[in-house]
Amino acid sequence: MFITFEGGEGAGKSTQVKRAAERLRAMGRDVVETREPGGTAEAEAVRALLVSGDTARWTPEAEALLNYAARDSHLKAVIRPVLKRGAVVICDRFMDSTRAYQGYAGGCNMGLIDALEQGIVGATRPDVTLIFDLDPEVGLARAKARADAKAEDRYERKGLAFHRLLRDGFLDIAGKEPARCHVIDASQDVDGVAAQVWRVIGG
Amino acid sequence: MFITFEGGEGAGKSTQVKRAAERLRAMGRDVVETREPGGTAEAEAVRALLVSGDTARWTPEAEALLNYAARDSHLKAVIRPVLKRGAVVICDRFMDSTRAYQGYAGGCNMGLIDALEQGIVGATRPDVTLIFDLDPEVGLARAKARADAKAEDRYERKGLAFHRLLRDGFLDIAGKEPARCHVIDASQDVDGVAAQVWRVIGG
Repeated sequence: MFITFEGGEGAGKSTQVKRAAERLRAMGRDVVETREPGGTAEAEAVRALLVSGDTARWTPEAEALLNYAARDSHLKAVIRPVLKRGAVVICDRFMDSTRAYQGYAGGCNMGLIDALEQGIVGATRPDVTLIFDLDPEVGLARAKARADAKAEDRYERKGLAFHRLLRDGFLDIAGKEPARCHVIDASQDVDGVAAQVWRVIGG
Repeated sequence: MFITFEGGEGAGKSTQVKRAAERLRAMGRDVVETREPGGTAEAEAVRALLVSGDTARWTPEAEALLNYAARDSHLKAVIRPVLKRGAVVICDRFMDSTRAYQGYAGGCNMGLIDALEQGIVGATRPDVTLIFDLDPEVGLARAKARADAKAEDRYERKGLAFHRLLRDGFLDIAGKEPARCHVIDASQDVDGVAAQVWRVIGG
């Protein structure tokens, strides 16, 4: 079972990944929590290149390629072996973030993103994806208040217009794959969001 | 005019890039020497991830993606603007290195490499490519003797079988694009190799 949590900045994904993992473990499930870009030492080194510095230091194409290099490492060293042993993987961001951030919001050619998705993700598509939906003005304000705001704020600094395209992109992805993608109203409080998440993955 | 120098380790490319650039400048040409992976601060940061550490730290797919992220930065910030102003670009390694190292020698899916070449290089293919051909045993021995041997030796440590596939790969690329690619006998001395290079690019 491969579950991904997707959405814009400040939507509360990381908190909900932890809550969901704890609840599944309490039911006796073997659960691995992980995140992207990241999840291996190599992928974390790529993450460091992506999340800091000037907003224009990478083009959307380069960002997509860097994310997919990290994803390849993560899939081969962590996600596929963990799924193979029968455990649940809950991943904070995955392929839909590349399509939304670099494709819909960044303007990267979708043909390139399709080729990367097919070539690197292949058959390891998520079984269930939760799309955390939130007004970007609210999300960016929340993200700014976080402890790590200064260390990893390159995407937050891309501005409100970018984050509006991003939200629309995630909703478009959800609309195209309704069997896999479930939209979560992330404007609710932590318990309210957790209850929505559980209705999808606790069944 | 976009000229690329390609080939395995220790083939003398870097020395010949300098010689060729000097000779073209002596004729009054505006020449920019550059290299891959590298050529911009961002691409050099990606290079650092590729050229050191354990030989298995990246899969051939991740290596291809990292190289193309660096290449995208290099094309947009350096190669295309320089070509547009009418100057000559001489680049030490370019797209054929990805096809040879990650594709032929590494086993990366060629369809992915084709998609990257089309999506990132597009119409900016080299006008002339020199393929420096050398027995890999000789090339690896030469590379080991270099000053920077310890700092950037990840590919050299991939072993002789890898470097034999690499040589065959470069020769296959040359055979498929004879109008663009010219094979240089890199076993000759520096002056002999420079004379071969000049016969191709000095015309």
